[in-house]
Amino acid sequence: MAGGIGSRLWPVSTPEMPKQFIDILGVGRTLIQLTVDRFSPVCTMDNVWIVTSRRYVDIVRRQLPEIPEENILAEPEPRNTAPCIAYACRKIAMRNPDANVVVASSDAIILDNVKFIDAVRKALDFTEAGGTIVTVGITPTRPETGYGYIHAAGAQEGCVGKVSEFREKPDLKTAESYLEDGGFFWNAGIFIWNVNTIDEQLRKYAPQISAVMDELAPSFYTEREQTELERLFGRCDKISVDYAVMEKSDEIYVIPCNPGWSDLGSWGSVRTHIDMDTDGNAVVGSDVRMFGCKDCIVHTSGCDTVIIEGLEGYAVASKGGNLLVCRLSEEQHIKDFLASK
Amino acid sequence: MAGGIGSRLWPVSTPEMPKQFIDILGVGRTLIQLTVDRFSPVCTMDNVWIVTSRRYVDIVRRQLPEIPEENILAEPEPRNTAPCIAYACRKIAMRNPDANVVVASSDAIILDNVKFIDAVRKALDFTEAGGTIVTVGITPTRPETGYGYIHAAGAQEGCVGKVSEFREKPDLKTAESYLEDGGFFWNAGIFIWNVNTIDEQLRKYAPQISAVMDELAPSFYTEREQTELERLFGRCDKISVDYAVMEKSDEIYVIPCNPGWSDLGSWGSVRTHIDMDTDGNAVVGSDVRMFGCKDCIVHTSGCDTVIIEGLEGYAVASKGGNLLVCRLSEEQHIKDFLASK
Repeated sequence: MAGGIGSRLWPVSTPEMPKQFIDILGVGRTLIQLTVDRFSPVCTMDNVWIVTSRRYVDIVRRQLPEIPEENILAEPEPRNTAPCIAYACRKIAMRNPDANVVVASSDAIILDNVKFIDAVRKALDFTEAGGTIVTVGITPTRPETGYGYIHAAGAQEGCVGKVSEFREKPDLKTAESYLEDGGFFWNAGIFIWNVNTIDEQLRKYAPQISAVMDELAPSFYTEREQTELERLFGRCDKISVDYAVMEKSDEIYVIPCNPGWSDLGSWGSVRTHIDMDTDGNAVVGSDVRMFGCKDCIVHTSGCDTVIIEGLEGYAVASKGGNLLVCRLSEEQHIKDFLASK
Repeated sequence: MAGGIGSRLWPVSTPEMPKQFIDILGVGRTLIQLTVDRFSPVCTMDNVWIVTSRRYVDIVRRQLPEIPEENILAEPEPRNTAPCIAYACRKIAMRNPDANVVVASSDAIILDNVKFIDAVRKALDFTEAGGTIVTVGITPTRPETGYGYIHAAGAQEGCVGKVSEFREKPDLKTAESYLEDGGFFWNAGIFIWNVNTIDEQLRKYAPQISAVMDELAPSFYTEREQTELERLFGRCDKISVDYAVMEKSDEIYVIPCNPGWSDLGSWGSVRTHIDMDTDGNAVVGSDVRMFGCKDCIVHTSGCDTVIIEGLEGYAVASKGGNLLVCRLSEEQHIKDFLASK
């Protein structure tokens, strides 16, 4: 899934070039490239499918030339994750009716890929027979209030366990109790299922979306596909797969895993994934000189010389003529600042 | 005089495009254009001469197309103000042996031009007969430690008075005593003299420079001029006219004046010359949005959208891929920061 606009990492991420297409960590690969790399032990390039917005198709082609062009699906408009997943899985099912699928966002990072792929393999083995959905549950390392949680009492790392329920983003106190309890995991939006299973589940819990897909399906792999998609995709309910299926179905399992996952959802989280200097400053940029600064994230890869003096706990980011200087403690307001004009 | 490199206003001012060629106040005219505009009541464009570095000649031509090309003099290398002035005045004297001249830098601003030109006219009247040099002395409005001072006990605003001596940049306590005393004025580097007078004074106090000019002069207004200048100009002593002549001569006068002068020598001083919002933020830029900021100067005219949150007393400046964020209290270190790589 590569349709997001990543507004929280403005100005490096913009609607024209959102974060999944950016080398946000300064490692030489964009987040979507890192994501595809990550799955290469379990998935050949022929079997990688990207669902993105129409406006990003060319970027995806450019960044992932090894993926067949027909595997890049263009949503006419964003309808959240359920229609996106329904569309991709239906297409995959038409080509391979028994396909066992991993769904993941294209803009997260994972540090321990071996551990992660090990969990994914176990999940794929588990779902192959059909009838079940597995999510990867990230073992929480802090009482994070920015993620949803999966409750699965007694679930063990590396073993598939039954999910009791999904929980919305908690307040700090609740998050702390989750961490203490030990049976709660971050919902990273990574799902493993057999295409037949998700089809059944969507028919049961999101019949409106399944009906649209039934109408669309005859056009798939024909020259009418994009026209039909333009006409019908927008009719799908705008709903996440979490709400549409996960929270309703009884067949949801989790595989707890602690692979160093982050959704890089904010400048503060990006900072923690870049090597810091002894003052806690994380820098992506060619010639960034810092004086008397502490605990800052600086992302100015398009700049020549950058001089920053006397900042503590700030994000400084620049790209394409846009500039952000903002306390990390206030970064949740960046969206409002952008909308303020 | 337009040869400076304005490093204290980096990155808006750079060696490639220093501050005299920039619309630093966002008023629609660059500082050198404002300077030429300023003298138009007393000087026709035919009589304006610019001495600059070779590398800036094209910029001067572009910004001041109304000035005859041959009036733009190109120094092969910077040798401080005495050789620069000696060269220009010698050329002017060859064309008009009785020329009465005002020398000024091209990167200062003056708010009350009527008052200033009134003082300049009086100074020109005074020097016309020859034998005297008049400097414009700016009535101090604060105990500034960044300027040299002119001591002229009892000198009255708008009246030419005798200078007792020039004083180096003082410490704060000394500057405060100057302000209290009342007989001290800022040395703005604005000099008025008859070309014969400066020639005499240079022969007396800077004979080495005069000797180089004697050797150069036969080439002036010929096609050999630039070649000869390349060969000989670098031989001139590297010295300011203040040290070479002003501090030694007995014929120095001052006309005190309070025209709202500033050399715009730092981001802090630029800030005070731009309209501020109610929080004391001075902004030059197209779409600059400030949140929780106080007493900042923001100069991002090349940028699209700029969001700045939570800064108090900072300079934020961006141009051509370079970026500065620095406390105004630390801005005297910008030169060091630039040299630090």
